[in-house]
Formats: sequence, C-alpha cells, structure tokens
Amino acid sequence: MSYNLLKGKKGIIFGALDANSIAWKTAERVHEEGGEFVLTNAPIAMRMGQIDELAKKTGSQIIPADATSLEDLEKLVTESMEILGGKIDFVLHSIGMSVNVRKGKAYTDQNYDWTQKGTDVSAMSFHKVMQTLYKHDAMNEWGSIVALSYMAAQRVFPDYNDMADNKAYLESIARSFGYFMGRDKKVRVNTISQSPTPTTAGQGVKGFDGFIAYADKMSPLGNATALDCANYTVSMFSDLTKRVTLQNLYNDGGFSNMGVSDYIMESFIENEEKK
Amino acid sequence: MSYNLLKGKKGIIFGALDANSIAWKTAERVHEEGGEFVLTNAPIAMRMGQIDELAKKTGSQIIPADATSLEDLEKLVTESMEILGGKIDFVLHSIGMSVNVRKGKAYTDQNYDWTQKGTDVSAMSFHKVMQTLYKHDAMNEWGSIVALSYMAAQRVFPDYNDMADNKAYLESIARSFGYFMGRDKKVRVNTISQSPTPTTAGQGVKGFDGFIAYADKMSPLGNATALDCANYTVSMFSDLTKRVTLQNLYNDGGFSNMGVSDYIMESFIENEEKK
Amino acid sequence: MSYNLLKGKKGIIFGALDANSIAWKTAERVHEEGGEFVLTNAPIAMRMGQIDELAKKTGSQIIPADATSLEDLEKLVTESMEILGGKIDFVLHSIGMSVNVRKGKAYTDQNYDWTQKGTDVSAMSFHKVMQTLYKHDAMNEWGSIVALSYMAAQRVFPDYNDMADNKAYLESIARSFGYFMGRDKKVRVNTISQSPTPTTAGQGVKGFDGFIAYADKMSPLGNATALDCANYTVSMFSDLTKRVTLQNLYNDGGFSNMGVSDYIMESFIENEEKK
Amino acid sequence: MSYNLLKGKKGIIFGALDANSIAWKTAERVHEEGGEFVLTNAPIAMRMGQIDELAKKTGSQIIPADATSLEDLEKLVTESMEILGGKIDFVLHSIGMSVNVRKGKAYTDQNYDWTQKGTDVSAMSFHKVMQTLYKHDAMNEWGSIVALSYMAAQRVFPDYNDMADNKAYLESIARSFGYFMGRDKKVRVNTISQSPTPTTAGQGVKGFDGFIAYADKMSPLGNATALDCANYTVSMFSDLTKRVTLQNLYNDGGFSNMGVSDYIMESFIENEEKK
Repeated sequence: MSYNLLKGKKGIIFGALDANSIAWKTAERVHEEGGEFVLTNAPIAMRMGQIDELAKKTGSQIIPADATSLEDLEKLVTESMEILGGKIDFVLHSIGMSVNVRKGKAYTDQNYDWTQKGTDVSAMSFHKVMQTLYKHDAMNEWGSIVALSYMAAQRVFPDYNDMADNKAYLESIARSFGYFMGRDKKVRVNTISQSPTPTTAGQGVKGFDGFIAYADKMSPLGNATALDCANYTVSMFSDLTKRVTLQNLYNDGGFSNMGVSDYIMESFIENEEKK
Repeated sequence: MSYNLLKGKKGIIFGALDANSIAWKTAERVHEEGGEFVLTNAPIAMRMGQIDELAKKTGSQIIPADATSLEDLEKLVTESMEILGGKIDFVLHSIGMSVNVRKGKAYTDQNYDWTQKGTDVSAMSFHKVMQTLYKHDAMNEWGSIVALSYMAAQRVFPDYNDMADNKAYLESIARSFGYFMGRDKKVRVNTISQSPTPTTAGQGVKGFDGFIAYADKMSPLGNATALDCANYTVSMFSDLTKRVTLQNLYNDGGFSNMGVSDYIMESFIENEEKK
Repeated sequence: MSYNLLKGKKGIIFGALDANSIAWKTAERVHEEGGEFVLTNAPIAMRMGQIDELAKKTGSQIIPADATSLEDLEKLVTESMEILGGKIDFVLHSIGMSVNVRKGKAYTDQNYDWTQKGTDVSAMSFHKVMQTLYKHDAMNEWGSIVALSYMAAQRVFPDYNDMADNKAYLESIARSFGYFMGRDKKVRVNTISQSPTPTTAGQGVKGFDGFIAYADKMSPLGNATALDCANYTVSMFSDLTKRVTLQNLYNDGGFSNMGVSDYIMESFIENEEKK
Repeated sequence: MSYNLLKGKKGIIFGALDANSIAWKTAERVHEEGGEFVLTNAPIAMRMGQIDELAKKTGSQIIPADATSLEDLEKLVTESMEILGGKIDFVLHSIGMSVNVRKGKAYTDQNYDWTQKGTDVSAMSFHKVMQTLYKHDAMNEWGSIVALSYMAAQRVFPDYNDMADNKAYLESIARSFGYFMGRDKKVRVNTISQSPTPTTAGQGVKGFDGFIAYADKMSPLGNATALDCANYTVSMFSDLTKRVTLQNLYNDGGFSNMGVSDYIMESFIENEEKK
C-alpha cells in the first residue's frame, strides 16, 4: 500500500540489519510513502547485515555511525542534512543490545561492565542522538522522533534480563528530552512498544519462540508483525499525529492490557490437570 | 490534505453536533480520506445542531438514534449496513453528558438519578453500541472502533465532576469489550484521550477557558485541536494501526506525562510572590 | 499479632459476610489492633451470613444498611457516631455484586438493567457513602477510607465480566471524591487491589479455582490471602500512611507488574508441546 | 509513637546524611519500632554528615561503603550479618546524585561521563546491593527492600534533569530484581515515590523551594514530610505488607493522581489576568 503520507519528508533510520528487522521494514514502508532518508548502523552491525541491498532498493545513502559516539553522531547529522538537502523530519531509533544476554549471564549475576555497555548502547544512545539533533537545530518543526521499546519496561519478563531496565531508561529519556524537543523545536518524541517479533536481534533471548507463541495467544488480535510496526511508525511520522508526544504507544495486539486470555487460562488448567 | 487512507471503508459516526465538535471534524476528514459513513446523533441533539449541513457536505445519510436505546441502535446498525452496502469498518463514539454538570451540582452533592443518567449516556451507551454490532456480526475484520475520552479518567480535574468517573467507566468498557471484539471479530477498540477543546459540549464545564489556557501552557506542544483529533482518529481507522487495541491513546501535546512545565511553574511562583 | 496501631480509632466496616470474607478478617484485625467499629451489611446479605458471631467476638454493634439507599446511609452514619461516641476515623467499603455474573450472562450479551444494578451496588454505593460522610462532616482529620478493588479495573480478565467496569468506576470515584475529602476534611481515600481470594462472594465467578491457581503461579510471592489484605488495610487505617491518598494499591504478590513468570511460561510450552 | 512493629527485625540503612534526610528519619523511626540496623553511607558523604550522632542515638554501628563498589558491598553485607547476629530483614536504599545537576549542566547539554556516573550511583547501585544480598543469601524470608524514588520517573519535571531517568531506571530494577527476590528468597522489593522534601540533597535542584510550594498546593493532603516517609517505610518493613511487591508506591499527598487542583488553577488564572 502507499498513500504518499511522507511525501517531502526527510529522515534518519537507525538499526536496519536484515530483512527481519523492524527498522528494515520501516525503511521500506517509509520509502513507499514517499519519505527520503539516510540509513545508519554501527560499523560492526553493518558488516553482519545486508544494508547495502536496502539502500539500493530505497535509493538511500548509508552513513556508518556508532550511536554511542558523539563524534560519529555529529558527522551523521551534519552529513544527513547535506545529503537530504535540509533539516530532518523523522528519526527512527531501533537500537538495543545486552552483553549479559548475549553471554548468558543471569540477571542476578550481572557483569556490571556489560550492563553499563548495554545501557550505553540501548538507552543513552537515544539521548545522544537527540542532543546532537538539538544542538545542531537539525529538526524541522512538527518533526517526529520514534524509538522502539518493549513492555518489559513496565512488567517483568524474566528472560528479558537487563534489557528490561534499558527500555525503562529509554522510555524515560523519550519523555525527558521530549519536553525540550517539544517546547523548543516543536518536535514530538515517542516510543513504540511492540509485540515480540522474530527478528535476528531478538533471537538471542532465551526461549524466544515459546515466548512469541505465548504473546500471540495472550493478545486478542495476535502479535503485531514487523510490518505492523513499520506501518504504525509511518503513522507516527505523518502529519496525522502532530500533537502526540511523550507517549509510550503499544502496538501489540492488546497484550499490554490483558490480565489473562481464555486460551492461556485454559492451557494452564489443562496442563495442571495432567500433573 | 488527503491520502485516500480510508478508501472503501464504511462506518458510523456518533456525536457530530456543530462545526466545533470533534466528531464533525472527524466526519469531514474521514470524507476527505475516502471513507463513507452514516451520521447519527440523539434526536434532541440533532434539533440543536446543524448536522444536515454536514450530511450534505459529506454525502452522508443521517439516522437519528438515542444511544441508550437498544431498539434505536439495532435500527441504526441494520439500516447503516443497508445504506452503506455491507459491513462496518469504523465507528466513532463521541458522546458524553453530565446532568450534574449542566445543573451545577457539586461532585460532593450529586443527584444520583442525574449521575446514573450521565453514566448511561456517556459510558454504557458505548457498551450498547458494541453489543449491538457484535450480535449483528456487523463489523468487518480489521475494523476499528474509537471512543473519545479525557484524562480526568486517570487524574483529578475538580471541575470535570462526574464526567471523570464516566470516562473511567468508558475506558474500561473499551478494554473489556475490546477483548471479545478482537478475539471473535478481529476488530480493534481504543479510546482517544484528547486535550480540552473549545467545543460546544465542553462549554458547560466551569472555568473552561482558563482550563484550556492552563492545559495549553502545560503541554510542550500545546493543546491538540479538534482537527488534530480528527487526524489521529483517521490514523486509528486506517490500516496503519491494525494491531493497536485495548489502548487509551493520548493526543494532548504531551500534557498526560507532564509533572509541571517551566511556564506553569514560573507563573505559580510569580503569583505567590505577589501575595 | 497486635501492635495497638488503631487504639482510639473508630470506624465503619461494610461487607463482612462470613469468615472467608476480607471484611470479616479486617474486622478481626482492626479489633486486635484496638480499633472500635460498627458493622454493616445489606439486610439480605445479613440473613445469609453469620455477622452476629463477628459482632459478639469484636464487641461491635450491627446496623443493617442497603449501601445504595441514601436514607439507610444517613441512619448508619448518624447512629454510628452515637454508638462510637464521636466522629469516624476509618471506613472499609467491601461491596461488590454483578447480577450478570450471578445469572450467567456473557459480557457480550448483557442485560442492562442488571448491569446498572451492579454498578449501583458495586461502585455508586462508594460515592453515596462518602457523600453522606462528607455532608455530615462525620470524618475526623487524618481519617482513612479504603475500598476493595481488583486488577480487572486495568487489565482484561474475561470471566470477570462487568465487575471489571464496576471496579474501574469505583477506583475513579476514589480519586474524584478523594480530592474533596483531602482538601476539605484532611481525609485520605484509597483502593486496595488484591489477589483473588477464595471468598464466598468470589465463588460466583466462573472457573475461579483455576484462576486462583494461575494468579498464584504468576505472582513471585504467591497470592495475598484475606489475612494479608486485612493487615494491609490496617496499615492504611493507621497513622503510618497519613499522606497516602488517591492511590490504587496492589496487594497481590506482585502479579500486577508481571508480564509472565517462569512457571506460567513453562506450563504453556509444556502444554503446547503435548498438542 | 511506637508500636513495636519491627521488634526482632534487623536491617541495613543506606544514605542517612543529616537530620533533614529521609534515611535519617527512617533510622530514628525504625529504632523506635524496635528494629536494629547497620548504618552505611559513602565515605565522602560521611565526612560531610553527622552520622555518628545518629549511630549513637540508635545504638547502631556504621560501615562506610561506596554503593557502586561490589567489594565494599560484600564487606558491608558480611559484616552486617555478623554485627546483627543473623540474616537481614529490611534494607533502605536512599541514594541519588546527579553530577549534571550539581554542575549546572542542562538536560539538553549533558556531559555523558557525568550522566553515567549519576546512573551508577543512583540506580545501578540498587542492583549491586540486591545482587550482593542475593548471592550471599543474606535476606530472611518475608524480608523487605525499599528504595526511594520520585515521580519524575513517570512525568516530566524539567529541573529534575537526568535524575528523572535515573529514577525510572531504579524503579525498573526494583521490578526486575524483585521478581527473583520474590521467587527465590520470598523477599519483597518496592520503591516509595515521595513528595519533594527540603532535604540537604534536594537543595541542589534549581528552584527547589518554589517547586516544594507548588507540589504542596497541588496535593489535596499537602506534601508528605520526611517523617511521613519514614512512617510509610516502617509499614513497608513490617509484617503488615508481606505480599506487596514490585510496586512503586506514592506517598505524596495525592499529587501523582492530580490533573490540577483548585488552588493551582486559580493561581494560574490570577497571574494570567495580571499580564
């Protein structure tokens, strides 16, 4: 589908790794809707991914940047404005990584250097991106900044480990910086909290397939897909949502407001009765 | 603007009274986006309003219905499907009224017959609308139902009186019925919680102008307008938001997540110092 | 245990039916802590219960009152002050009933007369109690009013039916009236949202035993018991919590902030694999 | 007052600086209620404070510890158990510091080394404390851990700067670790979110006096005092709240659920009219 919702709008998309990633789908959908953008990812992530293919498909340029490096971000923002020929209308932050998760460290047995590294990459990077945009006065009025989050920021999912805390930190940064972005730049800042999706990044989380099935059965409309998230992000970049800011928006088939679904309840009782 | 976001979609819009009302703006925007609909309002409200003008402008038919009457709602749903030539894709519930507010009764001195009347009109009517749609299997899959709410459902605004409780009740109905609408009909149900807008209905609330100014200064992006709300509702009716359900969505310039803005804080200090 | 936490405090306790009910346990604990009170319940509920036994045990008098009747509530408040020899320090509202649940009506097939009856008994009664106390200036400063609620007010539990909406309405009344009780009377108003407990009243809800087991396994500390709720209510009546107001307080072993526990997740996967 | 609520209970109290600090008041109240504890603070903070006086008054020993140092925390936990003659029943974490605030750096112009230092001291320290307790199996069953937080974790208070994000991170750690503390140790973990109090630490925040007045006028019961917070913490350490866990509990005179109070609204209108 295409509605020309983002015609004339320019942006930066962080975190497209491969065709499974939400940022990838979002880039495709933004392109279909007429938006132009620069793609960026960490140099190390780019070697693993197929971002060149996406750039070609969407007529985009790529600027590698470590989102924890202010120097890289300055270069990214400055060059993006040159490439796109003006200020920025939209930014997608889709970056998250926990070393503790990758190395199989339990939440009760953290290596704090790793924890700090995860916080820097997953949350503080969002502040750094916005501070760089703010200082360079790089955003157009009524621009829109979105970061991807997860419900573990509010509720306990034991295997999500320290990423839960990183997402809570990220969402707080969205509110705190969103105030100044709104007041001083007329720019909105929101996070989208999405169903678990079978992305390459998500696969590091233990028992992820079982969890995806669980989330799907808990949600009255089933899990949101990466495409659903791309579409929702497009709506948040469009002029249809100009006064929505400081929000954490759930795109999750309803999971976030479920206590229990009939399916999950019946499955539990069935299993208990077999014991 | 027009993106053809709702081309081919059919719906019912409750509550358009006059050009100030959010439902009126929404009807206009839905029409611009290619959606077709039936307009409805209470017979008594219709006499006061100019709904004929809106119907003419948008090529819509009008079916008067008291949203507290199951009989009227049955007729509305059945006839709407006939007029529109098929099932329903979207519904806007924009109905609210407090007799206690109208008659100037304090929240601590309620007339409970009036309270009950307000609950019936403002909240129970939403259940009745959905129960009627559900029983008639009147919604298309991936349809979208939206009711308008207000932040008084979560936080105290003293002059909002018993409408606060009505809105809390309404939002709960959205979640409760949203589960069954999702599970059984693949339909999403959400409420939009909007900035105070200078509608004709809102003018009954005491000190409403001062409150609108206050909300505007508290919100980093200022108050959302009726047009902003219409646009946001369009996005919620479109296919961009298919997996968003059971949510209460704030369209309020950020007020809902503010503790205090610089402007409000400085105004308070200034005024205290003059005392 | 006994700490004399409520020595010299006087109150009214609604809703003690039999030894399983939370209000019963609360009355026992309040008595142990030195509080004096009047017991009250609906005339019809009193015939079914053993409230005389509780009155004897706690040295309390009983005043039958239909909590939906302003006349009964006036009599209750006036006589209670006479019996207790002064103003009221604490009130427990533990009243809830859904005719739709009792009669087995689905949430999508409500009888609205029954819905309205349930709203009146379960939620509006709380407003009526507070309005009566407020008008008679019957509360001492730093008094405390507690109503019992349930998490279905925030999240969907399909079998909870229209009680979910009633509890959302109740919690909103606590906030709305709590503002005026605080501002004008220095009285705090809160709701306690408790784990499901095997009370006589709860037994009307379909599949309640399975649900109690589910909640227990979801909660890191297991379900709160009726005694836990009594203890928590005592703390809310005591001088330890003087500035806590307008809150909905979860006493639920942690369920309310869980996404999923290891136990529930493993049970789900086990059962899926057997299919 | 004294109820012997904590008789026989042993604990560790972090962060008592001087008689204005909440931790100091809490230590005094815990002592009155029969609890025994070890006092701890950062070596640098201890030089500035008068903690010896508190230790003398409450018959406590002091163990200096940098709460960001695992080594110091191991020593603290081990020695505390020796001094107290057994496992720990309660812990108060009252630690927070932002270098950006102290040095007057705006939120939009952060020095990220300082930001990271603040996160480590204010939030990560809470994880380190719990991980140390968990690994040493140092907590008794039904023990209670409390950290002090602030509403800036949910809502924007512009001058609160990066402490807002630190508190959001802290509250997430409470939930995440609280799950494992509950499941494996039967210990509850909560945060208390308190009114702004005129503590020595708080005085670093810009315009703090005006803000305290604003909060007081917004809250139907006025601001909670340091003593109110001490009392509430005592209730959370006592056996009255055994199944309350993973919660963020507001002790704030109702501010957290206010949209606007009559006083603040009138003050705003008055000031606008003078313009």
